[in-house]
Amino acid sequence: MRILEMLGSHPLGPPRNIDPWVNALGALHDCSFTCHACADACLLEDGVDNLRRCIRYNLDCAAVCETTAGVLTRCHAEDGDFARTMLEACAIACRRCGADCAHHASRHEHCRICAAACDACAKACDQLIEVLLVPTSTEPPARP
Amino acid sequence: MRILEMLGSHPLGPPRNIDPWVNALGALHDCSFTCHACADACLLEDGVDNLRRCIRYNLDCAAVCETTAGVLTRCHAEDGDFARTMLEACAIACRRCGADCAHHASRHEHCRICAAACDACAKACDQLIEVLLVPTSTEPPARP
Amino acid sequence: MRILEMLGSHPLGPPRNIDPWVNALGALHDCSFTCHACADACLLEDGVDNLRRCIRYNLDCAAVCETTAGVLTRCHAEDGDFARTMLEACAIACRRCGADCAHHASRHEHCRICAAACDACAKACDQLIEVLLVPTSTEPPARP
Amino acid sequence: MRILEMLGSHPLGPPRNIDPWVNALGALHDCSFTCHACADACLLEDGVDNLRRCIRYNLDCAAVCETTAGVLTRCHAEDGDFARTMLEACAIACRRCGADCAHHASRHEHCRICAAACDACAKACDQLIEVLLVPTSTEPPARP
Repeated sequence: MRILEMLGSHPLGPPRNIDPWVNALGALHDCSFTCHACADACLLEDGVDNLRRCIRYNLDCAAVCETTAGVLTRCHAEDGDFARTMLEACAIACRRCGADCAHHASRHEHCRICAAACDACAKACDQLIEVLLVPTSTEPPARP
Repeated sequence: MRILEMLGSHPLGPPRNIDPWVNALGALHDCSFTCHACADACLLEDGVDNLRRCIRYNLDCAAVCETTAGVLTRCHAEDGDFARTMLEACAIACRRCGADCAHHASRHEHCRICAAACDACAKACDQLIEVLLVPTSTEPPARP
Repeated sequence: MRILEMLGSHPLGPPRNIDPWVNALGALHDCSFTCHACADACLLEDGVDNLRRCIRYNLDCAAVCETTAGVLTRCHAEDGDFARTMLEACAIACRRCGADCAHHASRHEHCRICAAACDACAKACDQLIEVLLVPTSTEPPARP
Repeated sequence: MRILEMLGSHPLGPPRNIDPWVNALGALHDCSFTCHACADACLLEDGVDNLRRCIRYNLDCAAVCETTAGVLTRCHAEDGDFARTMLEACAIACRRCGADCAHHASRHEHCRICAAACDACAKACDQLIEVLLVPTSTEPPARP
């Protein structure tokens, strides 16, 4: 994905601390795809009766990761209040989905992969929250 | 929209306190559409230079309302922790977007309408958060 | 929903033939919500094994309706080529999902309601396609 | 992204001809992110007045790529009629957006990158359409 290039070409300049942004955007897109794919794989398993909660958590996590990625794409060089709350909600969704997938990881390879993607994404969200909490002294002026 | 009918036909039964659910789902869909439409209208205005922040907030608010509606559609008869955090993030997005739209309401009818939709949605989110905070004593058993 | 008001307040003016636009946007939002809700209801039914295809079609239909509504919100007073193809794809998804839901309509009220929403949406898409096929002689100049 | 791993772990098995699937899913996610980012970058440029069409095409393309990726994730081992129409709509959106971005490529690095992502995605859609057109003689039985 062209995340680093796109952040670097923004007219407001790249975010001050670009690594956790690139990391979070990559993890969010990966987790969103993986959760969509895990939902469909779970749905087609013989034991779908025991995977219903997993599918619901997958669908929530996929949607929240997608939306959070969109919010981050539009938020840099702004106050980060809303972005931070979205990242918190997203980390909850990732942890909830990852924990449920982990229960099925030994039986279903897709759940094993998805648990790893969720775990990586939750951590990437946490790390970007840390960055957004640091007050900015030299914020470039936001446009109206 | 067929919100009441659909909630009533769910195999786990309707939510215990159905009115704020119906109200929130209706307000979220309305706000999402209105924000999408306001973003496009702002973008085509002569004074687009002064509406950039409004467009960004519109796009965030539209996406978050859509995702929150999806989460609510999948969450009833579950513990409401994640739903609550999403509703909080959504209310922030609605208030931020509504406040920005309100600044342009006298010049742009679409911003006036959008500010009203955002305000209604923020309140509907708040009201559903209250409901989700009440502990449930007779929760039907969630399926796996 | 505030569809009529928002289309009327767009800086390029309302679409030339506003009724099928309002009708399609309303049907798309309704169908999207109904499909999301039907997917979750099917997933929680005892006989989920027999509803897997229905759930997949629901998820496709919900996503395509949402995206098509967004495209329509941004497309008026433009050439309609892309909008037309999206409406065609959307009508296919609605007919496919509606037909599958109709099979389960006698057993599951949510499938009965969803089949009706899909049917109404497919027809609304068809009708807007007709409008978009009429060549425009007095199109207002699109902005860059 | 974990595309290859996830397709390989699906209970219906990987698609018969996996390379164009992996290629298309990767290109769709890349193009969706790039278009979202290009929309925000264009919006913040000094000359936003001349980038309005580009922003609208970016938003359409981002949404359609996202939805098409979701459809593909759910469609393998099924008849491909709907997937094919979505891929056609998606290729139109990518070509339209890529052509507009290409006009601004010499002035705006984000438009140059986005034009390349759109071009790659349109080609990946075309290639997967070819695969879906080949009749399947040994399709595994789809589940209900």
